Amino acid sequence: MLIALDAMGGDHAPAEIVAGALLARNELGIEIALVGPREIIEAELTRHGTVPSGIEIVHASEAIAMDEHPAQAVRTKRDASINVAMGMVKRGVAGAFVSAGNTGAVMASALMTLGRIQGIERPALGTIAPFSEMGILVLDVGANADVKPNYLVQFAQMGSVYAERVMGIHNPRVALLNIGGEETKGSELIQDVYTRLSKSHLNFIGNIEGGEVHRGRADVIVTDGFTGNVAVKVTEGVSDFIFRELRTALTSKLQYKLAAMVLKPALLAMRDKMDPGSYGGVPLLGVNGVVMIAHGVSDARAVKNALRAASEGASSGMLDAIRSLARK
Amino acid sequence: MLIALDAMGGDHAPAEIVAGALLARNELGIEIALVGPREIIEAELTRHGTVPSGIEIVHASEAIAMDEHPAQAVRTKRDASINVAMGMVKRGVAGAFVSAGNTGAVMASALMTLGRIQGIERPALGTIAPFSEMGILVLDVGANADVKPNYLVQFAQMGSVYAERVMGIHNPRVALLNIGGEETKGSELIQDVYTRLSKSHLNFIGNIEGGEVHRGRADVIVTDGFTGNVAVKVTEGVSDFIFRELRTALTSKLQYKLAAMVLKPALLAMRDKMDPGSYGGVPLLGVNGVVMIAHGVSDARAVKNALRAASEGASSGMLDAIRSLARK
Repeated sequence: MLIALDAMGGDHAPAEIVAGALLARNELGIEIALVGPREIIEAELTRHGTVPSGIEIVHASEAIAMDEHPAQAVRTKRDASINVAMGMVKRGVAGAFVSAGNTGAVMASALMTLGRIQGIERPALGTIAPFSEMGILVLDVGANADVKPNYLVQFAQMGSVYAERVMGIHNPRVALLNIGGEETKGSELIQDVYTRLSKSHLNFIGNIEGGEVHRGRADVIVTDGFTGNVAVKVTEGVSDFIFRELRTALTSKLQYKLAAMVLKPALLAMRDKMDPGSYGGVPLLGVNGVVMIAHGVSDARAVKNALRAASEGASSGMLDAIRSLARK
Repeated sequence: MLIALDAMGGDHAPAEIVAGALLARNELGIEIALVGPREIIEAELTRHGTVPSGIEIVHASEAIAMDEHPAQAVRTKRDASINVAMGMVKRGVAGAFVSAGNTGAVMASALMTLGRIQGIERPALGTIAPFSEMGILVLDVGANADVKPNYLVQFAQMGSVYAERVMGIHNPRVALLNIGGEETKGSELIQDVYTRLSKSHLNFIGNIEGGEVHRGRADVIVTDGFTGNVAVKVTEGVSDFIFRELRTALTSKLQYKLAAMVLKPALLAMRDKMDPGSYGGVPLLGVNGVVMIAHGVSDARAVKNALRAASEGASSGMLDAIRSLARK
């Protein structure tokens, strides 16, 4: 099963992307097509010495930058690495696509090239709640600012399939992000979704509040793309803020600096626990293909982990499971 | 100007409430009516020795617990401290009301007893973004799960008045919480609000994303009560999570414990910076009276600071300013 990898996507492309591909090939045995300008990729591969079998280059002459207008770039740069790789998934040449590049462009290209799974009203972008390691899938986190009740029910279904098939969680617990525990809490839309989820065959455990997201009560947390995006960005903002404050506090006096040196291993271990690289990639669910989006700051380890998730996604029958749900 | 204080509200009532009242009386010269069962309040006051002038007791025979159903408790317990105090504001006996009790009950009682300011479609509950000290007002954080564009415009107007009159910020910068910076981002509703705010007389600086809330770019951040509530609770959840992890990490080995002892003052100072007690209370805006809600965990200092904000709210002409905006 070949996985197409966007060699040009991400803040540390192509170096960390190519390094991640080699890690995934050597450690996990995944076959990878590095998609992007051949010369650039070859130059990068050369730095690593011998290229193992199972790593190939698929030429794409263009790249979409992180700050380009997504839909416009996808339409005008037809030979961009994202578009070329998506075409490979469409034709069945690749079983999945991984990109650490422009998220909006990946979503636009996926919709344009692969299209939605029949019966799925809107695709959803998932993420793994920070601090939860492989634990908690949150979706949607930005694909849909405006939603209808049925979208959220489908997000719950797709998220449950992903958690079971790719994250390896048996009978995943699904919760609804809300502003209170009782079923009468929240907006009219959310109350409607609550009723529908209660009647579904999912393992629905009810509402979860913003303060509980990281506590591990649920495996899949369903929300609209507006609230989900705000929640994820607030999480990053607060975490950054606290670590910045911590750094300032620990360097404000000489005796603090010395004590901080002793604590360094503990603090680094803590930081690692919150590192998005541990899960690697997050899925775009509801399109006709396995598409994994890695964080823009991905290093080689994160890329490797995203390739692992993509490979699981491609071999686990996830798409067929979603297709059969959508037909019901 | 007498401020009515709910002696029975909050996790540490009545001890910290009464202690806070005495602090506010002695340090700030605020006149306070402690509202609740007379015997309980008297017993608490006795522990502090002589009761200064300017502290009075207004008897209320009942109290509403933190976990009671708000609207129901407000309707059935007519002699609850919250209802009695709200009546004092209604009659003009008190210039403002402060409670660290059941937030939903305070909102329900305020609506029932004081009513909305004419022309204001929905009251909004504000909060001060943690880590910002007196800096950033976020509203609505839970009063309105379902909103219309005009509600948010009014939240912006009321928030701007509060920031100017009570927080002392000249020409407050107003931002809209959104999932991207451009005006074409976000839900249809939010885009509509963006257009309206752009045309308003407010100092509207545009969109702000979830990760920027704590960065101090804006003084007033406007959002619906659903998103705002999730954002605030995620902030608390992430902060708690990190501090819990930090505590675990710093006590996992003997040498870490020793180093952590050296760092204790720095870590405590950092924690203080994030303590909701520094701003004390948050306003319920849009009702016919000054109502401040303090955090359930409020200690005496937080109660004192909430009383200070209530006193500012009562003496600054905030209500008249909101009334005249609503008439436009």
